[in-house]
Amino acid sequence: MSPPLSEPIRYRLTVEYDGGAYCGWQRQKDCLTVQEVLEKGLRQLFGHPVELLCAGRTDKGVHATGQVAHFDAWQPRSPETIVRAVNALSPSTVAVLAATRVSTDFHARYSATYREYLYRLLDRRLVPSALDRDRVWCTPGRTLDAERMRQAGATLMGTHDFSAFRAAGCQAKHPIRTVQRLELLRRGEELHLIMGANAFLYHMVRNVVGTLVQVGQGRWSADRFQEVFQSLDRRNAGPTAPPQGLYLTRVEYPQSL
Amino acid sequence: MSPPLSEPIRYRLTVEYDGGAYCGWQRQKDCLTVQEVLEKGLRQLFGHPVELLCAGRTDKGVHATGQVAHFDAWQPRSPETIVRAVNALSPSTVAVLAATRVSTDFHARYSATYREYLYRLLDRRLVPSALDRDRVWCTPGRTLDAERMRQAGATLMGTHDFSAFRAAGCQAKHPIRTVQRLELLRRGEELHLIMGANAFLYHMVRNVVGTLVQVGQGRWSADRFQEVFQSLDRRNAGPTAPPQGLYLTRVEYPQSL
Repeated sequence: MSPPLSEPIRYRLTVEYDGGAYCGWQRQKDCLTVQEVLEKGLRQLFGHPVELLCAGRTDKGVHATGQVAHFDAWQPRSPETIVRAVNALSPSTVAVLAATRVSTDFHARYSATYREYLYRLLDRRLVPSALDRDRVWCTPGRTLDAERMRQAGATLMGTHDFSAFRAAGCQAKHPIRTVQRLELLRRGEELHLIMGANAFLYHMVRNVVGTLVQVGQGRWSADRFQEVFQSLDRRNAGPTAPPQGLYLTRVEYPQSL
Repeated sequence: MSPPLSEPIRYRLTVEYDGGAYCGWQRQKDCLTVQEVLEKGLRQLFGHPVELLCAGRTDKGVHATGQVAHFDAWQPRSPETIVRAVNALSPSTVAVLAATRVSTDFHARYSATYREYLYRLLDRRLVPSALDRDRVWCTPGRTLDAERMRQAGATLMGTHDFSAFRAAGCQAKHPIRTVQRLELLRRGEELHLIMGANAFLYHMVRNVVGTLVQVGQGRWSADRFQEVFQSLDRRNAGPTAPPQGLYLTRVEYPQSL
């Protein structure tokens, strides 16, 4: 092994995981997390403790196909070696998709300028999904009217106070967020909601989805959705959608980093 | 409960299941099967033992989104009751998608005129899939050339002797099958092979896929694929593709039934 460097090297990882296998991203005492298993693999590869910081700390059950994280290492390793070794050392429920060397100015969380989530809804009326039971939310009861949901959701685009969709325990300094993308796409029997913003409040996507489903099932009007949003009061919004339909799909950074 | 009927009523079920949760369709002594769990649910609903016969007995690990099965009951139940009750009584890894009353001339296996399978290949070079690890075959090593595979596979269309792709232990009376559909579709990072025929030999789709992957990875030419096919000798073909990429998606019957 070569001698340690005088300055650390920073690496950026793109990570996919099955949220059902973990108690979320962040390290916990008595429950397996994504951070813990990846840090363990990196420690074995680099021979020293590694702290891995991510762009968006996902909750228990929430998946990722494009989580981004960074860490500092005191030994140089090629990106290909990092990908191969960490995947070989980690459970099959997590995969490092890519590794790149980045400047020490790069911070997975604080440098991120845009985050995108996918929420998968399945609205078979009577029947749950045997194959995707841990990958979608099977909305019970009525068929979802995508057009009604689109009309209601359009009001979220742009810069607003999202307090109506902010869960208790949210640690953000303020509730203002800028939604840059909100799409609802039919994908066979599924309805996919894609939501992109500079940043998200705690449970924001799941609270938006839970409320939009009220509209899609015909219980609430698009006008009521807008009233809820403008009330800035979480108690007026719908229930929080369950975690297994949610995927962190993309995080963007300034090109200079 | 109403008195039993003098003649049984035949019902047809469409079934989805996660093959990874079962030792295949067919009842076995020491291993959980799809047939066993569904027969158990039906017995609880109808109050008498039920035998469930399927169109295509899938192996351990093989999934279905459109398996068809039939059974005879001595109590009338509405299709909606059957769907709801059996799903409520069964594990979440199996779902009855639909139930219909059919003539006693209908036989899930012997009346079927067409079966269709999907095989999902994922050819990320270095990285396995954390989310779809039990849903696709992550082909190792090289990228798949779909066009080469299409050219080679085209030779399978029509009526031929499929002995080259017939596994030992196949109980079919003869090896002649008529392939009516063979398509290879790019779906993001995945390659989907769709194969439809009047019927299939044992492991036929998985043996075709394993051999086509040799072509797609550039090891074998399309000419060699054709030679293997025409040799009628299983020993010349490629390895059997693993079960978790395979889905029984559709079974068709004469309209008169």
